[in-house]
Formats: sequence, structure tokens, C-alpha cells
Amino acid sequence: MDMYQKRRAELYTWMARHSIALIVLEDTEGRRDPAVRYFSGHPGDAMLLLTITGHSVLCPWDEHLALKTANVDVIEPYTNYGRHPVTAVQGIAAKIGIPKRAKIEIPENTPYPLFLKYVEALFEFDVMCRENGVSKEIQRMRAIKDDGEIELILRACEITDSILDQLEKLMKSGKIKTETDAALLIEKEARAHGAEGTGFETLAAGPERSFGIHAFPPYTAGAFPAPGLSILDFGVKYQGYTSDVTLTVAMGELTAAQEKQLALVEKAYAAALELYKPGMPTRAATLKVDEIFRKAKRSMPHALGHGIGLEPHEGPAIRNREDNEWVYEPGMVVTLEPGLYHPDHGGCRLENDILITQTGNRVLTKSRIIRL
Amino acid sequence: MDMYQKRRAELYTWMARHSIALIVLEDTEGRRDPAVRYFSGHPGDAMLLLTITGHSVLCPWDEHLALKTANVDVIEPYTNYGRHPVTAVQGIAAKIGIPKRAKIEIPENTPYPLFLKYVEALFEFDVMCRENGVSKEIQRMRAIKDDGEIELILRACEITDSILDQLEKLMKSGKIKTETDAALLIEKEARAHGAEGTGFETLAAGPERSFGIHAFPPYTAGAFPAPGLSILDFGVKYQGYTSDVTLTVAMGELTAAQEKQLALVEKAYAAALELYKPGMPTRAATLKVDEIFRKAKRSMPHALGHGIGLEPHEGPAIRNREDNEWVYEPGMVVTLEPGLYHPDHGGCRLENDILITQTGNRVLTKSRIIRL
Repeated sequence: MDMYQKRRAELYTWMARHSIALIVLEDTEGRRDPAVRYFSGHPGDAMLLLTITGHSVLCPWDEHLALKTANVDVIEPYTNYGRHPVTAVQGIAAKIGIPKRAKIEIPENTPYPLFLKYVEALFEFDVMCRENGVSKEIQRMRAIKDDGEIELILRACEITDSILDQLEKLMKSGKIKTETDAALLIEKEARAHGAEGTGFETLAAGPERSFGIHAFPPYTAGAFPAPGLSILDFGVKYQGYTSDVTLTVAMGELTAAQEKQLALVEKAYAAALELYKPGMPTRAATLKVDEIFRKAKRSMPHALGHGIGLEPHEGPAIRNREDNEWVYEPGMVVTLEPGLYHPDHGGCRLENDILITQTGNRVLTKSRIIRL
Repeated sequence: MDMYQKRRAELYTWMARHSIALIVLEDTEGRRDPAVRYFSGHPGDAMLLLTITGHSVLCPWDEHLALKTANVDVIEPYTNYGRHPVTAVQGIAAKIGIPKRAKIEIPENTPYPLFLKYVEALFEFDVMCRENGVSKEIQRMRAIKDDGEIELILRACEITDSILDQLEKLMKSGKIKTETDAALLIEKEARAHGAEGTGFETLAAGPERSFGIHAFPPYTAGAFPAPGLSILDFGVKYQGYTSDVTLTVAMGELTAAQEKQLALVEKAYAAALELYKPGMPTRAATLKVDEIFRKAKRSMPHALGHGIGLEPHEGPAIRNREDNEWVYEPGMVVTLEPGLYHPDHGGCRLENDILITQTGNRVLTKSRIIRL
């Protein structure tokens, strides 16, 4: 049994326990869902249908690509169904012979008007679309990485570290002069090391723009690094799995306010890392960081971290909202990324990737605050 | 009245005609909607609420960014509402004083489970989420570009053409050796010309990979160009507006099958262009192209084109589905992109951007089949 079959087997068991005859996953423009890749190996633009009888059907936009990438029982080209998701599910359910009145679960993010069409077309079945159903189970499965996934993430992190070192060297020697230089070096080196690319659009923000959590545009022809605080946030995607790190570059003499901001972020980072361990609610670290910042009359405008994997943001959530019930478990791979931002002093964020182990954690990347 | 106010005024009129008290737009990870930028100037991660009384409230994730970019009546930071969309709409509706039982229209792509939460929280109002409501009206508005938009698209196309020329020169001189070289040249030159970046991830596929409609990964360290048929699909994003072109690069001596494929695509392109004119259903050109390919026992696995603007794919649709009712109107900016793909011969696609004018069309870009 290969890893895709193993993952599907786990889901089939869950389906049996909940008497769900058919599960529909969809990965399409506007509604991306890497669960299709997770369970089939096919990298995107497809529907994946899984039956309680242990049968997998991929319905890809691009049949040729699916023939090369997909590990499934059957491939049914989307064009056979007029390239419409409801028609595809209706046709495949009939072909498989899903019994009447059986439960069919469609994706949680199905827009309400599309949901109504599913319900109408699949009137013989019990159509389900819910927040705490299969998507939550898949989110839980994906939050805890299996050995194959950890290996890929470790490779992504290794490439990331080598790029971090190169960036530091080239910034020190003055060869990186603009945000574009930094971002394109990452794109080039990622691919030269065999990565698929970057996991999300690189954010390179010189001192004039680093006050933004997510600078806009992501990178420009503007100076980078430059005197003051600059931010560089990127991830390397290796066989689908992405790293996610942020460097802060502090150049020249800083003001007292800037120095204080850096020290606060480093203090928060160290305190939070202590709380990244199995059995600990992920919320604990966020409350600790909130407290540190609050004492300094500052606050952080984003979450402390998040899981990484096939998506740059996935489970577990690591934030202070009261409804956050995630608890660290061995095999989770997450970010730790305290940051503070100020329209006058600029922003800083320190972000690394962290594997939760049986006994605590292992920091997988070596991002840092670089002083020039 | 600036262009954002003018656009909002048009929508307020529509709201009055349909007695809709409040419209909610949301641009967030997983549910991107550039309509927020279209009506406010704010480039993303925000909710925008528009009232029938002509009042606009932006609820941004990043307050600092909004202060620099947004043209709205009021900015209400998302953090004031626990960073939850339902809480934000509930709070802002109360603050504005939307009358009980009034109609509130939420985004068409609202997932069903989130829709239920809106309905519950806004029980005093009539919550609407539908396919042919405000999103269709906005799609219609956005499909016909105003003068300000056309100016930005022309600039994006101008930069695109200059990059096309540079690519041809550097491929001929042998300076572009890999898919990555081609893709990163585009990224660099786009920004050097003042663009925000690229409008979507560049697809550079050498002959081994060009059979895919959307090669995966988008670009690699593999050879480009190389003997056979290669594809390069990219767009330049200028102040939010993207171009979208595809080059086919034919290198070395081609087989008869490859030559025939190229000739067919060129023939289809020329025939379709005749049908890109005001008053013509967009479907007409697609049926013409289908016919040309069918006679040669070939078929195209994707749509013939689509509108471009703040999104790389927007209205009008240009495809052969029977439910496609779009008709060309002056001010539409669209792609024309016939393509044929074969696992053995490779793929080719010829794509340019076209402005529909009062009398016919104007081709805005100079993409082509390049022979090396």
C-alpha cells in the first residue's frame, strides 16, 4: 500500500464510521483544495470522489497530466461531464451505483448557490455540506504529518536554509540591491535545488513598506535592504510541501524605538518556543506573546503561527481566539512568527518552522534578525 | 467625483432599483474578490460594505495599508470585530442603522456553512446570497472597462510587448536557457517597468511538458527553449490590471504533425478574430474554432478566451457552453487563445489581448509563434 492508498484507507474508515457513501473533493480556481493532491498525488484542477466501498475516482481538467501524476482507481475526464462539478458528481455517482438515500458529502466551501444546485441534481441522495464533517477530519489528518511528508518538509527547509545563508552573504556584499533582486534569487535558487518553486508570493519590503503585515505589492524595484527595518517572507515548495520563514534585516544605526521593537519580538519568540510542545494548547503561546507585547503597550496584528504543508496556511491554528481548541501533537509542523509593525519605525517579524516532537520541538529553519 | 465614487454611484443606483439596503463584498484568502479594489482602491484583505444611502465602509485586515490606499467614507479595522466576517457585518450594520427587515446581500461565493451563520446573526434582516444578484451586476460592470481602466491595461500590454521582444532576442542569442530564465526575466522586467508584478504564475513549458494546458510545476530548471514546441504564458500586472499572452516557441525542424498543429492554431486564431466585434455573441467565435479543429479531428481542451482586468479571468466568458449568453460590447478587453496539445507532439497556444471597439477590435499585444 503506498502513501496515497494509506491516507485514503484512513478516510474510508472514517466514512464507514459515519455511514457516508461518497465524499466529493474539489480543487479548482477560486476554491483550491490540496486535499485532492494529498489523497491522489494529482497536483490540481480536479475533483476527487471517494466511496465508502474503498473506490477512488479522479475527475481531472487535464487528462494527460492526470495519467502521469494520479494514483487512483479510475480517471474520468472532466470534459466527459460538460466541465461542470454538479454534472460530474451526478454522473459518477450514477456510474458507481451509489444507493438512493445514501449520504454524499460535498466540500465545506461550496458556495450557497452551488449547494442548491447539488441538492437539486442529487435529490435522490442526502447531500451534506458542513463545517465539522469531512473537511475537519481531513484537516486533522493533514495537521499531523506522516513520515513521507516530514521528509519532504525537511528537504524544503534545508533548501530554505541554504537560501537564507546566500541571501545574507549577498546582502552583506551589496549584490542584492532591490526587493526584486532578493525575491528572484529565491525563485531561482529554489528551482535550482529541485523545488517546484515558492509556496506563496515572496514578500520583500524595504523600510518604507515594512510596516505592512503583507506588503503590497509583494515586491517592487525599490531598495532592499536599506537603512532601517526590512522584512523578507518566503517559502520553498518541495514536491508540494512548503516552508515559510521571515527574515528581518536591520540596517545601519537604529532608533531606540526600533531597537526596543526588535528586542520585544525576540523575547516573545523565545517565550513562545517554550510552549510549542505536545499536549499544550496552541493558544497558550499566543496568550503569552500577547501579554509580553501588552506590557510594552504594543500588539500584534496577526496570528502567532499556523501549520504548514501542502498549503502555506493549514492546521493547526495558532491564535488567541477563544474558539481555538487545537493542541500540539507530535508530527505537527508549524510556524512561530511574532511581529510588530509601526508606520514610522517600520516592521519586524521573526519566523521559523517548527516540528513538534514526542518530547518538545525541533526548529527546522534558521531564519533570524540580520544586522548590516 | 473620482473613479471609485463614480463606480460606487452606479452600484448605489442598482441597489436603489432593487431595494437592497446593504451590500457586503469580501476579499480574503480562499475567497478573493477584486471588486473590493474596484470600488475602493484598497488592494485586498478587507470587507467592503456599501449602503443604499450611498455610504461606503471598508473593514481592512491591515489598517495602515488602508489609510494609504482606500478611497471610502469610513475605515473600520477588522480587529474591532474579532476578525470574523459575520461579526463585522453585524457590528457595522448596527452602527450604520440598517433598518430591520431590510435586504442585505452577501457574496455569492459565501460557503453554505458560513451563509447559515450570517442568517443566524442577521436574523432581523433579509439575508440574500445568490448567483444572479449583485455579483452578476458587478461582473457586468467590470466586463466593460472605463477609460481609466483601459489606460492601465494599455500600459500593461505595452510592457508585455517590450518583454516579448526581449524574450525573442534573448532566446535567439541563447541567453535564455531554462524555463526559470524566461520566467524570471519577465518578473524582473515587469517590475523594472513599474508594474506590480505578474498577473498570475508564469507558465514556461519546454517541449517535454508543453502538452499540458497548464504545465505543472509552472516553471522548472529544465531547458527552454529546446527542439520542438514550447509554451510561455504570462501576464504583466499594472496597478492591478493584468495582460495575458502566450508565446509558442517552435525550435528546430518540426514534424509534419507539429507543423499541421501550428497551422491549425493560426487558422483558428484568424477566423476567430473576425468574430470578436460588438454585437456578436462570444460563443460564435468558439463554435467557429471548434468546427475548424473538428474537421482536422482535433479538439481544444479549454475555453477560447475570457475577459481580463483586475483578475486574469473575468467576464465576459468566451466558451462554447450553451448557457454562455455574453455578447461583445465596446470596452470589453478579452483574450483570444486557441491551442492544441498532444502528448507526443507537444502543445501550442497563441494568445493575445483584444479590446472590443465601436467598430470591431484592436489587438493590444503582439504575441506570436516564434521560430528558432
